[in-house]
Amino acid sequence: MARPVAAAHWSSQDRPTDPAVVLRQVLRIHASSEDDPYFLHTLEVTEDDFQCLKADQGILVDFASFPGKIIGLLERCIGSHSTADHTPRFQAVLSCRPADSTLKIVETNDFKQLPHITLAFKPGNDFTVKQVGVWVRWTRCRVSST
Amino acid sequence: MARPVAAAHWSSQDRPTDPAVVLRQVLRIHASSEDDPYFLHTLEVTEDDFQCLKADQGILVDFASFPGKIIGLLERCIGSHSTADHTPRFQAVLSCRPADSTLKIVETNDFKQLPHITLAFKPGNDFTVKQVGVWVRWTRCRVSST
Repeated sequence: MARPVAAAHWSSQDRPTDPAVVLRQVLRIHASSEDDPYFLHTLEVTEDDFQCLKADQGILVDFASFPGKIIGLLERCIGSHSTADHTPRFQAVLSCRPADSTLKIVETNDFKQLPHITLAFKPGNDFTVKQVGVWVRWTRCRVSST
Repeated sequence: MARPVAAAHWSSQDRPTDPAVVLRQVLRIHASSEDDPYFLHTLEVTEDDFQCLKADQGILVDFASFPGKIIGLLERCIGSHSTADHTPRFQAVLSCRPADSTLKIVETNDFKQLPHITLAFKPGNDFTVKQVGVWVRWTRCRVSST
């Protein structure tokens, strides 16, 4: 399977011309791959979606703090090194199916695998693969030039 | 709600007279109450049940080590003290319904409630309330006399 890279960003939908229209913030998370330009799984979370996720998974932070917590968990996955003897303590596992996919961030202790978060992704289509591909390449260029 | 007390013990079912018959070990967990002699919720886990539980909840230990891990988690709940400012880090929560009940042991961190284990209990009937009541009183007498 292609080695996935996760990226998250905020955006505002429905940019209003009418000042009475309220901007909706949407959290988008993309799982892409440096090895396969067609590998893309995406997640969009609106504030309404987040309220369901919060109730289902016992999340205690608000929508604004949620991306930072996800990034923190992904950083713990990056910082967990596997050795011949030990499974990494934190792992991000993307299970891919044709119509949907699931990203789980799990902590492995001496008793069990603890699910820190489970997120339902969707495989990208032609449009999103092109759109996100441009955004990812642009972000990488910007990061490498700083 | 009555303040529950959890107790776990092993037993062997179907004590065989024929040496070819294999003993089945069963883990029984009782949630009873010092304040209410009729409060009883029970769980029986055979080795076959445990294999399902292990797969469903990502448990990494074998059947023989499972009771010790549950006791370890309950001890962490006892050791977690709540204060006015803080929720206890570990909590055992028994949700009671007429036909079934669920015991969850959860850890609360700064992001969410992490489910360490979820176990499906059943409310006791007249027979089990009497049977377990005798066993619990006998165990308490033995513990207090040592």
